Amino acid sequence: MADEAAVRAQADAVRRLKQEKAEPGEISKEVAKLLEMKAQLGDEGKSKFVLKTPKGTRDYSPKQMAIRERVFSAIITCFKRHGAEVIDTPVFELKETLTGKYGEDSKLIYDLKDQGGELLSLRYDLTVPFARYLAMNKITNIKRYHIAKVYRRDNPAMTRGRYREFYQCDFDIAGQFDPMIPDAECLKIVHEILSELQLGDFLIKVNDRRILDGMFAVCGVPDSKFRTICSSVDKLDKVLAGAPRLWQLLLGFCHFAQLGSVLSPPTFHMELTNGEEGGGLKLIEQLLQDPKLSQNKLAKEGLGDMKLLFEYLTLFGITGKICFDLSLARGLDYYTGVIFEAVLVQQENDHVEEPVSVGSVAGGGRYDGLVGMFDPKGRKVPCVGVSIGIERIFSIMEQKVESSAEKIRTTETQVLVASAQKKLLEERLKLISELWDAGIKAEMLYKKNPKLLNQLQYCEDTGVPLVAIVGEQELKDGVVKLRVVATREEVRPAVPRCGTGSSLTRHHSSGQP
Amino acid sequence: MADEAAVRAQADAVRRLKQEKAEPGEISKEVAKLLEMKAQLGDEGKSKFVLKTPKGTRDYSPKQMAIRERVFSAIITCFKRHGAEVIDTPVFELKETLTGKYGEDSKLIYDLKDQGGELLSLRYDLTVPFARYLAMNKITNIKRYHIAKVYRRDNPAMTRGRYREFYQCDFDIAGQFDPMIPDAECLKIVHEILSELQLGDFLIKVNDRRILDGMFAVCGVPDSKFRTICSSVDKLDKVLAGAPRLWQLLLGFCHFAQLGSVLSPPTFHMELTNGEEGGGLKLIEQLLQDPKLSQNKLAKEGLGDMKLLFEYLTLFGITGKICFDLSLARGLDYYTGVIFEAVLVQQENDHVEEPVSVGSVAGGGRYDGLVGMFDPKGRKVPCVGVSIGIERIFSIMEQKVESSAEKIRTTETQVLVASAQKKLLEERLKLISELWDAGIKAEMLYKKNPKLLNQLQYCEDTGVPLVAIVGEQELKDGVVKLRVVATREEVRPAVPRCGTGSSLTRHHSSGQP
Repeated sequence: MADEAAVRAQADAVRRLKQEKAEPGEISKEVAKLLEMKAQLGDEGKSKFVLKTPKGTRDYSPKQMAIRERVFSAIITCFKRHGAEVIDTPVFELKETLTGKYGEDSKLIYDLKDQGGELLSLRYDLTVPFARYLAMNKITNIKRYHIAKVYRRDNPAMTRGRYREFYQCDFDIAGQFDPMIPDAECLKIVHEILSELQLGDFLIKVNDRRILDGMFAVCGVPDSKFRTICSSVDKLDKVLAGAPRLWQLLLGFCHFAQLGSVLSPPTFHMELTNGEEGGGLKLIEQLLQDPKLSQNKLAKEGLGDMKLLFEYLTLFGITGKICFDLSLARGLDYYTGVIFEAVLVQQENDHVEEPVSVGSVAGGGRYDGLVGMFDPKGRKVPCVGVSIGIERIFSIMEQKVESSAEKIRTTETQVLVASAQKKLLEERLKLISELWDAGIKAEMLYKKNPKLLNQLQYCEDTGVPLVAIVGEQELKDGVVKLRVVATREEVRPAVPRCGTGSSLTRHHSSGQP
Repeated sequence: MADEAAVRAQADAVRRLKQEKAEPGEISKEVAKLLEMKAQLGDEGKSKFVLKTPKGTRDYSPKQMAIRERVFSAIITCFKRHGAEVIDTPVFELKETLTGKYGEDSKLIYDLKDQGGELLSLRYDLTVPFARYLAMNKITNIKRYHIAKVYRRDNPAMTRGRYREFYQCDFDIAGQFDPMIPDAECLKIVHEILSELQLGDFLIKVNDRRILDGMFAVCGVPDSKFRTICSSVDKLDKVLAGAPRLWQLLLGFCHFAQLGSVLSPPTFHMELTNGEEGGGLKLIEQLLQDPKLSQNKLAKEGLGDMKLLFEYLTLFGITGKICFDLSLARGLDYYTGVIFEAVLVQQENDHVEEPVSVGSVAGGGRYDGLVGMFDPKGRKVPCVGVSIGIERIFSIMEQKVESSAEKIRTTETQVLVASAQKKLLEERLKLISELWDAGIKAEMLYKKNPKLLNQLQYCEDTGVPLVAIVGEQELKDGVVKLRVVATREEVRPAVPRCGTGSSLTRHHSSGQP
């Protein structure tokens, strides 16, 4: 008779053989032995159940939910301030809806098992479902937000807020409008939300796919390679975490692409990012004057729009935290114009040096071609949008709350209905029912005869501010005694419960606790 | 060269052969031909993309979301009034977490494709994830709500609000408490929510699994068959939609189980449900006096608790809409005590006859064994909870709104920033930025030079109540003109924008529209 230890040893042996790429025949012999041992174990084997959530996912406790709701509330308030409507879409889409939208990241899409019927996949972001929604309903003009979970079979790094199931908070403007007005609003929204949440200093990097496109075209990089390069730049950015400024990286690309020999020397040698005064207007002007680059149609359009964008951002008064950054590429395939990404920056100690990036908390851009991919006649609906990366923000907020003295309440209960003596369950039930019907948030302990001390302790623990105490004397007088938990002050109305008077007698409780 | 029509004809031919179970060789020959034709079509073939959401799912438009938010808000307000915390869990669980919890309904669970790593399934309800959460975090005492989507590969009936992806709004109380106090609160919550939403008259049917268990035991039905019978009773209920009162059905079962010959004649022949005075207390008393049934331990416990429950419900003043109904079984495997289900009832024309059930809108019950199934040592945490069926409620609310004259706003915008003349984009951008920063919900049209008429029309269409008009004269005076859309009244402050005075001059606009 096999025991559990023997089964485990056999399983290890099989694993080892597979790792060593042993002969298939040998492996299957050992697998058969393992299965037989497991069968002998029978039901006992089943009890090896692992109690966990799937890899890369987590539960939210009531305390975490309270923090999360606070973040959501700030974000939704901002979206509504900008006049957005809200929509919702299913958590899964037809597999083909997602096909061809994410480039090489498609391999991270969760597919559902084929159980008959349609082939389905979990949504990878909210942008593609939005585009599908617009095309399907022939909507050519909408400003909407959508807050929902998305799914990526990525390598989770949960301590840094990277999960396989995570929320996205998206705001998008779809429609044919005059250039850069909606784009500027998206950046204003990121600025408002990050300011409101007080996560520390931040920087919003802005670029335009057309400028990058144009630069690569000028260097002779074929169109077909361009998306892959963008994706690689984005990946390397994540790997290197910004340490040796991306400038060097792009320099590498430029070398590869002989950009250096194409662009004029002053353009090539200046700083790619310009976070100080003007937020990058100087760099844009310089690039516009580059004789080679300015002859490329795409680059010229991109640079012209970038200049306009910065004019609008100046009117909004937010250029101080926005910089034009040629090294920003963004990973997703579908962007066609302005792209941007917000990062939190930490000042290293006091001698303010290079700000250190602690990761992206928002990103977005313009995707004018995506809706057309769904429309049977290819009709385009220009779109621009922003996605707030709530998980990283939430991680930071959670740390802030942990390190502060703030005590977070997880309920909103206003009053606990308590009794001072035994045999008053019926009276408590009657009173709490009255309170609920009057819209008052009330709780009681689910015990027939709870001790007053336990009832008061419950209030201390959960932050319930008031106790309504039912006692024999109060019942005789037809009143309820109210006790303020924090001050232990007691208030006893002089008139019966059904009356409307409000004259109260106050006295301090001398009792416990 | 194949054309699309030919491909479709060939596809039809293949389908026919498969249906007719033709010889495999013949089928594969025709399949090969079909593939070749498709290949010839090339990229054209690809464009046959179907633009839809997966079967049994839907998008929510902004208008639908506005109605949905209203329903959610009423439900959440009620849950919070009862002191509930909130949690969230992942949309998928380890497959084995769901295994063995739903009886034969398990076949409706969505599995994820095995892409390496853990085997996952989409959650089927919120109750099993809640029990997993409690066991995993060793929580023995909590009152929480959870509002989230669940997934069932059921036959959708979308016009009647039955979907494959749908929301559940769950409220549960976990912990070892004195009997029936939390159970009574769950019923109070259903009563509050259905009253608040004003969906029309409703009835909450209550029963106890132990009473059914006891009855079947008295009849000699083996334990192992009992769960299947409950599930069948539940299914038949759905199929027959309550038409020939379930009484007949249970009579059938009783016959099968010889219950008739076991129970004393008066018990057997009385009405199974009793919706009038007392909500069923009379029936409970009668059953308690049945000589055979009262000797069964389970039935006696169940009946005793049911009596206590009705005492508490009487104190809450809600027995008028609650009835003890022996024919209620509920489909799910995990219930162990009190079970209940709320249905909306329609009065057929004026001569008030039998109320007609239009389907279940809430349900729940006690499941004392579920958490123990997850705990390594089998430690039990008694639980009772309620689930509000939001989709059917939402369908009804949507119909109500459609048939009423109510115009639903989908944004909360307070003011549109407009201009009366051309070339004022910069001024509009500056003003709207000021408004946003002051927390005012403001929009503007994304055009350089929009017509005033179009701007006013936008307000009419979307319900924006105010227009802030920037004009050359106002700019000179340093003021902004405010127009009330509904009355066309215009308000023009006599002091500049930066001032604090509030003296206003009013005059009615004589212009358009």
